[in-house]
Amino acid sequence: MQLAMIDGQIMPYEQLDRHWLNFGTFFGDGIYEAVRSYNSKIFALDDHMQRLHNSLQAIEIDVDIEKIKADIIKAFNEANIANAKIYVQITRGCGDRSHIDIDLEPQILITISELPSSCDQKTYGIKTITCPDLRWKRCDIKSLNLLPNVMASREAAKKGAQEAILVNDKGYITEGASSGLYFVFKNKIYTSPLGANILPSVTRKYIVKACNDLGFSVIEKQLKIKKALKANEIFMGVTTRDVVAIVEVDQKPIGDGKKGVIASKIEAEFVKYTI
Amino acid sequence: MQLAMIDGQIMPYEQLDRHWLNFGTFFGDGIYEAVRSYNSKIFALDDHMQRLHNSLQAIEIDVDIEKIKADIIKAFNEANIANAKIYVQITRGCGDRSHIDIDLEPQILITISELPSSCDQKTYGIKTITCPDLRWKRCDIKSLNLLPNVMASREAAKKGAQEAILVNDKGYITEGASSGLYFVFKNKIYTSPLGANILPSVTRKYIVKACNDLGFSVIEKQLKIKKALKANEIFMGVTTRDVVAIVEVDQKPIGDGKKGVIASKIEAEFVKYTI
Repeated sequence: MQLAMIDGQIMPYEQLDRHWLNFGTFFGDGIYEAVRSYNSKIFALDDHMQRLHNSLQAIEIDVDIEKIKADIIKAFNEANIANAKIYVQITRGCGDRSHIDIDLEPQILITISELPSSCDQKTYGIKTITCPDLRWKRCDIKSLNLLPNVMASREAAKKGAQEAILVNDKGYITEGASSGLYFVFKNKIYTSPLGANILPSVTRKYIVKACNDLGFSVIEKQLKIKKALKANEIFMGVTTRDVVAIVEVDQKPIGDGKKGVIASKIEAEFVKYTI
Repeated sequence: MQLAMIDGQIMPYEQLDRHWLNFGTFFGDGIYEAVRSYNSKIFALDDHMQRLHNSLQAIEIDVDIEKIKADIIKAFNEANIANAKIYVQITRGCGDRSHIDIDLEPQILITISELPSSCDQKTYGIKTITCPDLRWKRCDIKSLNLLPNVMASREAAKKGAQEAILVNDKGYITEGASSGLYFVFKNKIYTSPLGANILPSVTRKYIVKACNDLGFSVIEKQLKIKKALKANEIFMGVTTRDVVAIVEVDQKPIGDGKKGVIASKIEAEFVKYTI
């Protein structure tokens, strides 16, 4: 008889709740999005929906994106949380494990939760470490294959840092384990060009807009870590916290080791778009 | 109020069954093994347990490996399936999504099911395609981050093939989407050397033993696809089917396009170890 055992408890395979057979778990065969609201207003939802659509298409999961958007809005309104984190996860569906699915029904999970406070990080900036970029070759797809990101984040936490800066095997910085990175040299802002090895960050789009609106040039170029350490300022961009200064890399201070003036200006400009 | 929505249905977040918050799904933060039995006897269980242990250690999931082995044997005996596929999956555990866990309890799923018939594949061999190897840089860890493998397998299926041969960006063959690969040139068998880009296949260990026992030399060397196509024979090694001949790559026949003599000899030798 076909059997399943969960944490030591045996049951007939047929009685196993089908959620245990989620292709999202078996293979990371799914896509996610993280969206946030500022003061009861969802920020850049259409940008996130477009990226979600692109990622789903890249791995051939076929869902009604308008229905998901409507579900997000419905759940967000019902939750009534002013500063919410909206997590959306779509997996290929549930069924017997096989590298090739046979007409599974995609499964959609949305959670709406309070954004944890990032006040300290926003005020004082964060410490980072560098880590080898072990990720796959399609980081432009926002998939559930995030183990290398987890490994880098765990490494950072162990060293008392809050983010890992990923460095590829040619010595170039790609992006953060869960953020985009920006390097300030005088009034020029360097960031990695979009490509298969970079997530097309929604926050990036609005940081670039802020730079443009403030008259800073954005230069899309990957930097080596040695050059990056000489930046006047470094900051990261991430949906849940928008602009956060990086004041330390591998225990070395960046600039004067304090949150920079330009990061602060860009942060203030960014906030305008969220109102 | 914090909320969850599953396939359109809203509920309070606190009422969400915690299995929905599996780090295995959020991040592919988990390890798996596939083991099989031949005629009611589990094959190479200790080899699989050692690999499981190594992979768990690499991503710092701490479980009692002897307890898992005992659970596997218990479930296998209870299932009473002669030729069974044993799937073991260990995830970091369930909790609020965060790249860094705070003392989660690892979650263990074991399933015991009938091995699907592979009679046709074993008798006639299989067709394959080549695909870019998009995987991460730690393929020696048997993790749940398998989306690139799924994408390659789907591509193969679309083209009427049963496996994808992964080719890295330097043009070298690494391994199959879910198998190890072996290339026969006269009485020499080429296979990729073990390393961070290759799964340390248990089947490989016994194929190498079979080659040695039969007097074939095993050469651990990556091949370019152009050279590989000139092989007298190609075969793959995979737990669920041990030795399977590859008779076609990208619609080009290998050798005479039929299952080869040496693959057959190695297959027969392999079977001896399973008794």
